[in-house]
Amino acid sequence: MVRPVITFLTDFGPSAPAVCRGVMFGIAPDANIIDVSHQVPRYSISDGARTLVFALPYMPVGVHVAVVDPGVGTDRLPLALRTRRGDVMIGPDNGLLIPAAEALGGIAEARSIENRDLMLPVISSSFHGRDIFSPVAAHVAMGVLFESVGPVVDVDRLVRLPQPKPTVREGVLETVIVGVMSFGNVTFAGVPADLEKAIGKLEPGRPLLLEFGGSNGGPNTRERTTWAETFGRVPLGASLVMADSQGTLSFADNQGNAAGRLGLSVDQPVRILPG
Amino acid sequence: MVRPVITFLTDFGPSAPAVCRGVMFGIAPDANIIDVSHQVPRYSISDGARTLVFALPYMPVGVHVAVVDPGVGTDRLPLALRTRRGDVMIGPDNGLLIPAAEALGGIAEARSIENRDLMLPVISSSFHGRDIFSPVAAHVAMGVLFESVGPVVDVDRLVRLPQPKPTVREGVLETVIVGVMSFGNVTFAGVPADLEKAIGKLEPGRPLLLEFGGSNGGPNTRERTTWAETFGRVPLGASLVMADSQGTLSFADNQGNAAGRLGLSVDQPVRILPG
Amino acid sequence: MVRPVITFLTDFGPSAPAVCRGVMFGIAPDANIIDVSHQVPRYSISDGARTLVFALPYMPVGVHVAVVDPGVGTDRLPLALRTRRGDVMIGPDNGLLIPAAEALGGIAEARSIENRDLMLPVISSSFHGRDIFSPVAAHVAMGVLFESVGPVVDVDRLVRLPQPKPTVREGVLETVIVGVMSFGNVTFAGVPADLEKAIGKLEPGRPLLLEFGGSNGGPNTRERTTWAETFGRVPLGASLVMADSQGTLSFADNQGNAAGRLGLSVDQPVRILPG
Repeated sequence: MVRPVITFLTDFGPSAPAVCRGVMFGIAPDANIIDVSHQVPRYSISDGARTLVFALPYMPVGVHVAVVDPGVGTDRLPLALRTRRGDVMIGPDNGLLIPAAEALGGIAEARSIENRDLMLPVISSSFHGRDIFSPVAAHVAMGVLFESVGPVVDVDRLVRLPQPKPTVREGVLETVIVGVMSFGNVTFAGVPADLEKAIGKLEPGRPLLLEFGGSNGGPNTRERTTWAETFGRVPLGASLVMADSQGTLSFADNQGNAAGRLGLSVDQPVRILPG
Repeated sequence: MVRPVITFLTDFGPSAPAVCRGVMFGIAPDANIIDVSHQVPRYSISDGARTLVFALPYMPVGVHVAVVDPGVGTDRLPLALRTRRGDVMIGPDNGLLIPAAEALGGIAEARSIENRDLMLPVISSSFHGRDIFSPVAAHVAMGVLFESVGPVVDVDRLVRLPQPKPTVREGVLETVIVGVMSFGNVTFAGVPADLEKAIGKLEPGRPLLLEFGGSNGGPNTRERTTWAETFGRVPLGASLVMADSQGTLSFADNQGNAAGRLGLSVDQPVRILPG
Repeated sequence: MVRPVITFLTDFGPSAPAVCRGVMFGIAPDANIIDVSHQVPRYSISDGARTLVFALPYMPVGVHVAVVDPGVGTDRLPLALRTRRGDVMIGPDNGLLIPAAEALGGIAEARSIENRDLMLPVISSSFHGRDIFSPVAAHVAMGVLFESVGPVVDVDRLVRLPQPKPTVREGVLETVIVGVMSFGNVTFAGVPADLEKAIGKLEPGRPLLLEFGGSNGGPNTRERTTWAETFGRVPLGASLVMADSQGTLSFADNQGNAAGRLGLSVDQPVRILPG
């Protein structure tokens, strides 16, 4: 008999997740609650969404609770999604859940969480993670039917995050920073095939030039770097452009902090050219 | 068959809790060890006590180990409390456990931990979390009788933390900051009913004036703010006074860091007046 | 029936360990995955090795995965060690695993991990924690024979970290800082018996003089301190030299941060003399 799986992501920091864990174990004592992260940058829906895309495809099929919820207490919907892989995702309707749901086969059905019997008796206005999302997730993990959480919502009406895409031009790929990982590795929108369409075949050691757009009207930053297969293929401290472990274009310093060194941040535009 | 529950809070930071987890799993292999927090500010008994009050009422009945223990190795008692809800709490006799024990129905019995058979064979002078508290907790979780840990201690002789209370005056509530949460939300001693006794009915949007006493002899800080039901009811970056998720008076910036902005810290006095 | 134990240490920070946990639970749904730490300073093999030595002897016998792996994607071996205590250790061949293997009775056998059937279908060049080490560990925890991971490797050819030792001289112990713990406690190479050989019997309260070698050519730092049994035996804020919870020579401030106050760091030489 396998324990029901509940994965759990928030931007709550150190102690608030424990309260939610307590609520879930009170309902589902044998659950296997797997922490995804509780250090999502506060209120950053897009960082939370990226972490879910990164982690959930490697998780067992189960219930996934995610709470990055700047709109708690307003009229944003509490949402439950059933994925085609068979998972249930629970969280606010603010775009947080959708990219990972697509990575789990797509959304089979969306429902608004309205069934008060599945929530704590008292609903605070500022801690729906504890009062709504955690108990609903635990009940579903224990076998409560997905259909019982509340009425169907039209998938086309769900709130979605903007999805940056790269632009292939003659001899240059125009893209944007979509993520800055811990340790200063930087992720760009796009994959190596996009870059090859723009500038031709990528051989290990091929020189590249990165032009980062200035933020706040400051000057651009230029970086001479190389295409490489992995960190260890360039000297200690040298930078490289590579496909990261998800196959996405990324930029990093070997055992250094590229984002810190160059002052890079999410949403900053970047042009990639032959070096 | 449900796993025995052990909750676990320390101020140890990243790796020392693992040693204690190992000790507990060695004794209670099927335990469900639920981390409450290991990022309590180092040596802050009052922060640890507040986190326990916040989390334990939502935890299943079980054994709760808590170690914030600046007096380790001196003659402070190692303590075991039985609560009226049926929990056992394990930790140092320095006030850490008592507020949460009261939130779990009150202390039914207190005992001094003296039974060497329940401890590790070697007791260090600086790591009682590993050598005393964790193994005793795991043995109790496995069914060892509470009575066997050591002799009864008079509840009236337990070390207690000071408990700040608000003072209701004509047109002003005089209170004090009792907690600064991650992300800069601030908790005051008292509840909305205390504030209503002082200044009358609290309607959403009612203007308030906060006067924070200067720390270190510096000048006072004044803040014009409003009473609101939740973060999302005030503009982005605006401040509000509200009842937090525990029903306590609190002060926050919507998606900002109020404590950081105003330089607020625990024990600072504050006066709340009509704005 | 006891759950198979997998302990887990990385330098990955907050979210990457979740991916590995997902992979392991996918293979071993009933595993008890015990986090040792994921906040090892990035790429610091020696810090990771020290944390394993600190924690693993208190862990149940099981499979121990550890990933601090600056050479990922190069030709360093992926390694599996069987210890004389009966554990299996999984990680890169860079010295990370060996000190803890010795603390678990010594290395009974070493094997290079080569069996592709135990890995994920696609092996990235930068995330062997997810693609190789986690799935192999989970398969071994589920009962796959240690011998099946790959061919035997000569234990004498494994990569080892340098092991600093103290030098006993007439009236002075010459040693070196081997660890700086969270909260600024400092660990020296050596034990109290080494210091007694150099300067004679250590009585509580005995004055000592520490001379820390200057780093980066700066001047030396001198500290007058005392030998004490534990933190609480010296005044608040005062420093002490003591045997830490592992019996190693250490230096700390009672409720302070000694390393921060004096600017101390790993590898800095120190001389301990009578005060």
